Amino acid sequence: MLTGLHHVGIAVADLSSAVELYTRVLAGRLLRQGRLGEVDFALIQSGGTELELLASSDPESAIGKFVAERGPGLHHLAYATPDLEADRAALAAAGHEQSGEVRVGVHGTPIVFFHPRNLGGVLTELVQETP
Amino acid sequence: MLTGLHHVGIAVADLSSAVELYTRVLAGRLLRQGRLGEVDFALIQSGGTELELLASSDPESAIGKFVAERGPGLHHLAYATPDLEADRAALAAAGHEQSGEVRVGVHGTPIVFFHPRNLGGVLTELVQETP
Repeated sequence: MLTGLHHVGIAVADLSSAVELYTRVLAGRLLRQGRLGEVDFALIQSGGTELELLASSDPESAIGKFVAERGPGLHHLAYATPDLEADRAALAAAGHEQSGEVRVGVHGTPIVFFHPRNLGGVLTELVQETP
Repeated sequence: MLTGLHHVGIAVADLSSAVELYTRVLAGRLLRQGRLGEVDFALIQSGGTELELLASSDPESAIGKFVAERGPGLHHLAYATPDLEADRAALAAAGHEQSGEVRVGVHGTPIVFFHPRNLGGVLTELVQETP
């Protein structure tokens, strides 16, 4: 059972200028910055949720392609779950299309994506909550 | 000074099926549903934030145009402020482009939008916090 919004994923063209925007202009708090695979990320606390800024210099990466095709902008919504495998299976059983395999995300726990189709046009991620 | 994310705006094609999706499948809690001008909206509590579902049967409305051109999906991020006029003026003075006039939003308080340009491709709303 999902427990609520975990973060908002935002594709950005340049990570450091995006961190500047989201901290100085939009008053968020930088929690952490790092790199995972081909993605540079920054986690920003804003009100009761996190904004996950994602940049990639690899034009073949999902984020690189997204920014090249549509420009930077809102990318996905992620929901927390105490049992990723149960919720993954429930969504799949309800006909939702998993996009890629379960893998470890930037929070260090398993994540999985579901295709925007049948989910109101929103790329949707499940994030295993930190135990 | 902005105090943090207030809600995530999501354009939907059909409000009742979107409410069904966001409550039953994605485990949010329906707070309120209504109509403001040409927009039908539903507010969904999810984790520490709100999801604002927006639908319009008017093809000339901002939401109607968005859905017709890009399909349903993530639409905007809104930030709370205790002083909308001060933050509106600060963003404008920093070169950000206001989109439309200050008006009363679905929470019953003044709101104003800023163009995605110079804001990382994200349509950005300020919401006056309920006093």
